[in-house]
Amino acid sequence: MPQISQKGCQMPASPIRKLVPFAEEAKKRGMKIYHLNIGQPDIETPENVIQAIKNTNIKVVEYSHSAGILSYRQKLCEYYKSCKINITPDDIIVTTGGSEAILFAMQVCLNPGDEVIIPEPFYANYIGFAVNSGVHIKPIYSSIETGFALPPISEFEKAITPRTKAIMICNPSNPTGYLYSLEELELLKKVVKKHDLYLFSDEVYREFCYDGKVHHSAMNLKGIEDNVILLDSVSKRYSACGVRIGAFITKNKEVMKVAMKFAQARLSPPTFGQIAAEAAIDTPKSYFDKVMKEYIARRDIVVESINKIPGCFCPNPSGAFYAVARLPIDDSDKFCQWLLESFNYEGQTVMLAPATGFYSTPFLGKNEVRISYVLNLESLKSSMKCIEEALKVYPGRTK
Amino acid sequence: MPQISQKGCQMPASPIRKLVPFAEEAKKRGMKIYHLNIGQPDIETPENVIQAIKNTNIKVVEYSHSAGILSYRQKLCEYYKSCKINITPDDIIVTTGGSEAILFAMQVCLNPGDEVIIPEPFYANYIGFAVNSGVHIKPIYSSIETGFALPPISEFEKAITPRTKAIMICNPSNPTGYLYSLEELELLKKVVKKHDLYLFSDEVYREFCYDGKVHHSAMNLKGIEDNVILLDSVSKRYSACGVRIGAFITKNKEVMKVAMKFAQARLSPPTFGQIAAEAAIDTPKSYFDKVMKEYIARRDIVVESINKIPGCFCPNPSGAFYAVARLPIDDSDKFCQWLLESFNYEGQTVMLAPATGFYSTPFLGKNEVRISYVLNLESLKSSMKCIEEALKVYPGRTK
Repeated sequence: MPQISQKGCQMPASPIRKLVPFAEEAKKRGMKIYHLNIGQPDIETPENVIQAIKNTNIKVVEYSHSAGILSYRQKLCEYYKSCKINITPDDIIVTTGGSEAILFAMQVCLNPGDEVIIPEPFYANYIGFAVNSGVHIKPIYSSIETGFALPPISEFEKAITPRTKAIMICNPSNPTGYLYSLEELELLKKVVKKHDLYLFSDEVYREFCYDGKVHHSAMNLKGIEDNVILLDSVSKRYSACGVRIGAFITKNKEVMKVAMKFAQARLSPPTFGQIAAEAAIDTPKSYFDKVMKEYIARRDIVVESINKIPGCFCPNPSGAFYAVARLPIDDSDKFCQWLLESFNYEGQTVMLAPATGFYSTPFLGKNEVRISYVLNLESLKSSMKCIEEALKVYPGRTK
Repeated sequence: MPQISQKGCQMPASPIRKLVPFAEEAKKRGMKIYHLNIGQPDIETPENVIQAIKNTNIKVVEYSHSAGILSYRQKLCEYYKSCKINITPDDIIVTTGGSEAILFAMQVCLNPGDEVIIPEPFYANYIGFAVNSGVHIKPIYSSIETGFALPPISEFEKAITPRTKAIMICNPSNPTGYLYSLEELELLKKVVKKHDLYLFSDEVYREFCYDGKVHHSAMNLKGIEDNVILLDSVSKRYSACGVRIGAFITKNKEVMKVAMKFAQARLSPPTFGQIAAEAAIDTPKSYFDKVMKEYIARRDIVVESINKIPGCFCPNPSGAFYAVARLPIDDSDKFCQWLLESFNYEGQTVMLAPATGFYSTPFLGKNEVRISYVLNLESLKSSMKCIEEALKVYPGRTK
C-alpha cells in the first residue's frame, strides 16, 4: 500500500470531533445532550435568503466568475460600505466559505517553513490550514485573566524571526469572544508596518458586538493597506454556514492577482450559495436586532451562571457567540469526555469543547473549555445547571 | 510590501483565460464570438435538479457532515452501483467540485517534490493543483496520430523515479475526448501494482461515451483497490457546474481517514449543491438519451468539418465533449489570439483553447487547439465555417 504524505500524517484531527463517538454512545443510552461544542447556531437563516433560492429561475447552473458573481461582489461593496469599509468589486474574491479564504491567504503569502504569529487560544482549524500550507504557527499567549485581550506588543516583537511573514487575528475571536479595541489594532499596525508583515484579519463575527462596543476592521488601518488581507464569511452573519460562501479581500493588487490564479484553478465558488448570499445583504435590520438581543441574553446566562459556580471564572466576552471559561478541573479533555461517558443529571449532559484544542502550546487550556452559546435560553439554563452539578461530582476536580 | 510566496509566483494563469481580454475587446467591436474554448455546456440542468432546490424547506442552512450529507452518499452508492462500481458511503467524501477532490488526492498522497505521471495533453488545472501541492508533473506524450491513446507502458516505466508516487488519468479525457479501453487500464494496473503507486482516476465524463463504447472505471481494477482514488464531479454529468459538488472515492481506509481530516478542516461541502446533486441521481434516462444524441451530433459536425479543411486533422473522440484538432498553423496561442483580434467572417469569429495549455512539455501543442462542442448544432456549423475561412487567411499558416 503506498504511503500517506507527511502533511497527511501531521494533519490534526478536529479537537471537537474527537468527542463525537462518545456523544453518539451517550445518545444511544438515551441521554439528552446539550451541544455547546459547535459553531453551528440554531438561529434561523433569514427568510429572504431561503426565498431567493426558492425563487431562482436558473436553467443552466453554470460556473460563475472565479472571483464570484459580479452583481454579488458589487452588492458586497455596499454591505462593506455600511460597515465603513470602502472597497471595490476588484478587491474581492468570493470564496468557498471563510475556510478557502484562509487557505488562499496562507498559500499566496507564505512559503513552507514560514511563520505566522497568532494570539492563542485561536480557531482550531487554523492549524489544519497551516499544516496544509507547510506554515508554522507561532502562538502568543493571551490570558483569561485579561479576558483574552491582545498580548503585550513586546511579545510579538520577541516572537518575530526572519521567517515571520504574517500575523493573524480573529476579531471578534472564536473561541474567546474577545473584541479588539482600536488601540490594540493600532499597536498591531505598528509591528506589521515595522516588519512589513501580512496581517490576516478574520472578521467573520463582525456583526456580533455587544454592550455598545464597535467593531474596527483591520481594512481601515491607514498605511498598511498592502499588508492587510480580510478573511470573511457569511456563515455566522446570516446563520447560513451551509452556503459555503466567504470572501478574500485585499487592496494589495499583486496579492489579488496571484490569489485569482488559485481561484481560477478551482473554477468558481458555489452558485446557489452566492445567490443566497447576495439576497442576504438585504436582510432587514429587524432580523439582526432580534438575533443580537437573543445572543446577549444567552451570553449573560452563560457568563453569570459560570461565575456563580464555585471555583469557576468566565470573562464577559464583547463579541461572537463563544466564551472560554476556567473550571476547577484537572484536564478539560478528560472532563468533556467524562461529561459524555459518565455524567448524568436527570438524563441530561452537555458537550463542551476542551480549550486545549484552541491552544497550540502544549498543556495550555487544560482547565478551560469553550462554550458556544448556540442554543435557546431554556436549553442554555439547563446546560449551565448540568455543568454546575457535574463539577460537584467530577473525580478530577482540583479545588 | 511583503513578498508573494514561491508557489504563488509559480501558479500558472489559466491558458483559457489569457485570451479573455481579447474576447472582451472583440465583443466591444460588436463581433459575435462562438465560445468553443470552455467546458461549460449550454445543455440545460435537469428540471428535477432545479426543482429540488426550489422545493427546499430548510430553516437553518447548516454545515453538513464534512464527508457530505449521509442520504446523498447513500444515494451516490446506488448511482455508482448502476455504473457497476460497488462502494459504501464510507468510501466517499463529497467535495466542493472535482477540483477539491484532486487537491485532496495530491495533498493526502504526495509530498512536495514527489512526482505524478500524467499522459499529456491533460486538463490544464492539474498544473495549478500540482503547484499548490509542491508536486512535480511528469508528462508522458500521447500522440494525436493514435487519437491520444495510452502511450506505451514502457514510457511510464522510463518516467518512474524513486520520487514517483502516482499516475493520474482523465477517462474519458479532457481535452482529447479519448476513452481508455479495458486493455489499456489493465496495462496501467500492472505498472501501478509493480511500483505500488497511487492511481488517480478522474472520471467526471463517465456518462459521455459514444459509438456503443463502454466506460471502464479504475475502481474495478482487481488487486489495486488500495491504490486507486476515483475523482468525480456532478458538474458535467448533469450540466450543473455551478453546484460545485464532486467526490473523492477510495477503498483505501488509511487514505480515507487522512482525507477526512482535510475535509473536516474546511468544515463541509455546499449544502444547496448537495441537495441538487442528490436529486440529480433521479434524473430520468430520457434526459441522458437526449443529451447523448445531441453531443454525438455535435461531435460528428466538428470532426467531419475539421477533417474536410485542407491541412487539418481531428481524431474522432469516443467520449467527453472535447476534441483536439491539428491545424496548419505556426502557433496555436498566436492563432487563437488572432482569431479574436484580427479575424472577422461576416461579423463572427470563434474562441478556441490553444492546446499548448494542455501540455506541460514546452513547444508541444503549438499546432493543435481544443474544441469544446458545448454549443448548439447551428452555432457549431457557423463556428466550423469560421475556422475554415480563418485558415484561408491566417498569416501564420504553415502549409
